[in-house]
Amino acid sequence: MSRLGAQTLRYDRPPVIAAHRSIAGGKEGEGPLGKWFDAILEDDLLGQKSWELAESEMVRRCARDALDDAGLSPGGVDALLGGDLNNHIIATSFAARKLRAPFLGLYGACSTFVEALVLGAALISAGGLDSALCCASSHFCTAERQFRFPLELGTQRPPQASWTATACGCALLRAEGRGLRITSGTLGRVIDMNISDANHMGAAMAPAVFDTLSAHLADTRQEAADYDLIVTGDLGWIGRNLLLELFRKAGIDVPEDRLVDCGASLYRQEQDVHAGGSGCGCVAAVSCGWIMKRIERGEFRRVLLSGSGAMLSPTSSQQGQSIPGISYAVCIERGD
Amino acid sequence: MSRLGAQTLRYDRPPVIAAHRSIAGGKEGEGPLGKWFDAILEDDLLGQKSWELAESEMVRRCARDALDDAGLSPGGVDALLGGDLNNHIIATSFAARKLRAPFLGLYGACSTFVEALVLGAALISAGGLDSALCCASSHFCTAERQFRFPLELGTQRPPQASWTATACGCALLRAEGRGLRITSGTLGRVIDMNISDANHMGAAMAPAVFDTLSAHLADTRQEAADYDLIVTGDLGWIGRNLLLELFRKAGIDVPEDRLVDCGASLYRQEQDVHAGGSGCGCVAAVSCGWIMKRIERGEFRRVLLSGSGAMLSPTSSQQGQSIPGISYAVCIERGD
Repeated sequence: MSRLGAQTLRYDRPPVIAAHRSIAGGKEGEGPLGKWFDAILEDDLLGQKSWELAESEMVRRCARDALDDAGLSPGGVDALLGGDLNNHIIATSFAARKLRAPFLGLYGACSTFVEALVLGAALISAGGLDSALCCASSHFCTAERQFRFPLELGTQRPPQASWTATACGCALLRAEGRGLRITSGTLGRVIDMNISDANHMGAAMAPAVFDTLSAHLADTRQEAADYDLIVTGDLGWIGRNLLLELFRKAGIDVPEDRLVDCGASLYRQEQDVHAGGSGCGCVAAVSCGWIMKRIERGEFRRVLLSGSGAMLSPTSSQQGQSIPGISYAVCIERGD
Repeated sequence: MSRLGAQTLRYDRPPVIAAHRSIAGGKEGEGPLGKWFDAILEDDLLGQKSWELAESEMVRRCARDALDDAGLSPGGVDALLGGDLNNHIIATSFAARKLRAPFLGLYGACSTFVEALVLGAALISAGGLDSALCCASSHFCTAERQFRFPLELGTQRPPQASWTATACGCALLRAEGRGLRITSGTLGRVIDMNISDANHMGAAMAPAVFDTLSAHLADTRQEAADYDLIVTGDLGWIGRNLLLELFRKAGIDVPEDRLVDCGASLYRQEQDVHAGGSGCGCVAAVSCGWIMKRIERGEFRRVLLSGSGAMLSPTSSQQGQSIPGISYAVCIERGD
């Protein structure tokens, strides 16, 4: 493994995406990507006693299915890397206790899935692991409890608010095999432009996405057009426009039709999610369920996948703090 | 980098601990290790408006001092890795926004510091980074707000409860230079033995510590006596005894006088902390302030440093869930 520029890792032994699985909830299943997900939940409680246990069960099933696809037993993967939006990432860690694989708990808010890919790929490329299961999840109901108000209140949501997706994505990386490869990864810096509206995540995160994507292009000496597709996690419709504006101001040419946002793609406007989908599971499920499959089917060859997170907590919001953002990115390539 | 056994990484280019810094609060300063810490806070609020901002400021100062010691500017380190006990690790991420270095947010509860050392060392050994600042913090007041009750309530604490330390530790790892080296790291698995008493962290975490330490010894084909010292994070007096019992039952010989627990060392019995100190900052500050200095001074040559975390949240406790534990370990060696 080697370093390119200031923030990018080149995986000299690029790991293979040996398997990937996605699970989404009912509302997500009714969206434009519904048929792409590997499973749609009929019951958002998954038969569990609480929303948090439900989210953890969703992670467990998604991980188990990805491992099954790759012919690995639950304890047979060298490490599980991931996180979620619950306090202390309990959905992921409780799933990890059932899987019994070595665990690396991560937190990058909604960027956690891509943070996991960056680290998992690094550890495999470096020869430390032969396999790594990278995952992230979110659940609408656990997020409402975590960050906002009881569902029963029926609180009104402003136009710039996003909808936390009930979704989970798992990607199993391996040192050997056939499939898409992760060839580089870019670390993010925490960027804060003093946005304090907790209902405007797109604005809070766009600067961080700009920072990471422009660093990636500079570090790898590429232009945006060298990628068939550039994916962002959950900037939503508003945040995506802000990102394009930041690129324009910096003189970085990004063809608009090559920039797609997972959160802006997950729901139809008629589903009334306002600014779009969000949550750790958004980029995880959409990239595993939609993006990776399209690369595998030959529609794209090189994709720059990024995720972004708003590093706030209910406590920091209540204390009137602004919202720092962070973003990670990986290059996924199809070799022939 | 290569893998040993099931859970251990051997750092073929072992990084140097180029600098380390520790900050602790007033109560910690009055404990037996008081004179070992690099700084003792006169004001646990650090002049800030809230406990959370205070903890973040403590992290920022500790990180800045470690970087200064190594002659690096704040943005001059290749990555900051770390976390804390606050929801969504806001103490660390808010410090990261001021430092402007690439950031990898981690969460392993009170094991986070050692998780950061494992990953930071891996990324340096693999050639992806030249430097990594590994940190973790905790603050008594943020932890009480996070996990328990308002301070003003004066809630009684049971004998098996531990005291969250106001403390921070930062270790700056570099690919080159002189100093102690981290030669191997062991990943942990999430272990849950069905302890659900949120006031009994020692019992919740001891099985995970046993799992990781015994894996480390098996993976590296060593015995406990091959180490001059084996350090645990915050099992406390009770948890330490449980760990020794687990070793005895497994037939693993661990000389008791070589097993030291940071939480059990941090306070005097007269300070009435009950089972001992805990918190992410406990193992971070004690290992940076006390353990590393003693190795550097020649008292020890090879030390196995572990940290452990209880992966619960207030929500999981309120839902009656048991407490999963996790533990990571690194081998620190003094070369001559």
